[in-house]
Amino acid sequence: MDKLIKAIINKKNPSVAGLDPRLNYLPESILNKYGCKDDESAAEGIFEFNKRIIDNLYDIVPAIKPQIACYEVYGSAGLRCYKRTVDYAKSKGLVVIGDIKRSDIGSTAEDYAKAHLGSGSLGADIVTINPYLGIDGVKPFIDAAGDGGIFCLVRTSNPSAVDFQDVICADGRKIFEVMADLVAGWGADTIGEYGYSNVGAVVGATYPKEGTILRKRLPNTFFLVPGYGAQGGGASDIKGCFDENGLGAVVNSSRGIMMAWSRNQKGKFTHEEFDLAARAEAIRMRDDIMNALGNVDY
Amino acid sequence: MDKLIKAIINKKNPSVAGLDPRLNYLPESILNKYGCKDDESAAEGIFEFNKRIIDNLYDIVPAIKPQIACYEVYGSAGLRCYKRTVDYAKSKGLVVIGDIKRSDIGSTAEDYAKAHLGSGSLGADIVTINPYLGIDGVKPFIDAAGDGGIFCLVRTSNPSAVDFQDVICADGRKIFEVMADLVAGWGADTIGEYGYSNVGAVVGATYPKEGTILRKRLPNTFFLVPGYGAQGGGASDIKGCFDENGLGAVVNSSRGIMMAWSRNQKGKFTHEEFDLAARAEAIRMRDDIMNALGNVDY
Repeated sequence: MDKLIKAIINKKNPSVAGLDPRLNYLPESILNKYGCKDDESAAEGIFEFNKRIIDNLYDIVPAIKPQIACYEVYGSAGLRCYKRTVDYAKSKGLVVIGDIKRSDIGSTAEDYAKAHLGSGSLGADIVTINPYLGIDGVKPFIDAAGDGGIFCLVRTSNPSAVDFQDVICADGRKIFEVMADLVAGWGADTIGEYGYSNVGAVVGATYPKEGTILRKRLPNTFFLVPGYGAQGGGASDIKGCFDENGLGAVVNSSRGIMMAWSRNQKGKFTHEEFDLAARAEAIRMRDDIMNALGNVDY
Repeated sequence: MDKLIKAIINKKNPSVAGLDPRLNYLPESILNKYGCKDDESAAEGIFEFNKRIIDNLYDIVPAIKPQIACYEVYGSAGLRCYKRTVDYAKSKGLVVIGDIKRSDIGSTAEDYAKAHLGSGSLGADIVTINPYLGIDGVKPFIDAAGDGGIFCLVRTSNPSAVDFQDVICADGRKIFEVMADLVAGWGADTIGEYGYSNVGAVVGATYPKEGTILRKRLPNTFFLVPGYGAQGGGASDIKGCFDENGLGAVVNSSRGIMMAWSRNQKGKFTHEEFDLAARAEAIRMRDDIMNALGNVDY
């Protein structure tokens, strides 16, 4: 996790830009240039969209988080676009968080880890993991991630998270707290120079109370916080996920940045200027979060 | 789920062949023919391996279950091989269960569902789902699957499954039983002509007691049962997953079939005859399970 934390400190920005592109996010000029009617041409258009966002953000944000589902929908052409995006972001010095939410039993998890981390075919620095299978499905990713790391789903940002994750256990913990404690244990041997382990947790901004509870419960676990912006979370909602040094969490915005021209930056930019709008929004988001953290000096 | 159940009845065989190919499963002739030193050539070799297995099994088994991790490890070339395998199996009349264990929040789950089901780029008939996020991450797959369906992880076959899934809740249920009840509820509106819903459950053969408990608890939920063969489960271990008509479950064997020449069919076949060995093992497995079910007449 130290790689991400160092990048956050260098950029003075604990936020990450989600790259979850969809065809209707693309301006006419890109749609017209590539056609974007089949998997191959859609993937070409999406790569140009991503590249322009990265070109405008790489000096602002420490990391990007491509959501692989948005690429898989275009089959093997989409996966090629995902890889190009990962590689291009790395070439610009960005940390890449592959939002893959994978896991499986031992040998299969090894295949996933080999594919998605380090020098693998689709190698990100960090990946997200769905830890329902327990440590068997997590360990291969920890081993492959080195000083990158993983983020395990603990408290997700969606409305129905409560139906399962809030069920109360015999010892009084909720299911997401059971998972939180497992995640803390899995990371205990990998605590780095900032006091955080390589096994992080996904904690949705849409549940601020739970974020605060989990921050106290997991002092050595770094959080990836989705749900800021388009999903409804604001800077005050994510404050509880941070420690007293303004570390401990990285906040994601996807649609809020990619569609900034039609949202927070509405009227200031046209659809064709989506990349400039993304930059303005990334700066606004950084300042919004840093302000909520009391403009801590890293 | 009716599509799978019909195929089981037609073939008189409640088992599925897992296609989780790895390069060391390939005989020298295929390795030499393609080289298999980079992603492209490895994917070519693996497709030939898969094709020969399918050619020798399609009249015996109702379904195949490719494990997508074994393809993703070869990046976009691997995903192309996965798609070719899915398409080829369908062309031979097989039901395809994509073992993808995906899930995410609403709109992202929609992308995954579009990619992996129906006429999508990688369209299987049925997929496996990791339901930690609750119904938000499951519904798009149910909607996209039609009379195919999904299998949600409930009780996985791996050793560490117990660390999380066996934690006891305040009402006395274990976490896997909480998930089981959610899964039953999610499927309640989709019960087909055999009494089973389109929302099935993954229940590992390595936990026979839990299989029997879940069969009673979930009378309308079809089970996908991994863990037979290479992982240690035998026919007597999976019996409790079936109903009194010999339906209610489909049992998977992956390594046991792909590596049959070196395992159950050892000495009878060479590595070059892996496909004939796979056929012999698929027949042996079918007869083993049908015998344990009292040779029920579908």
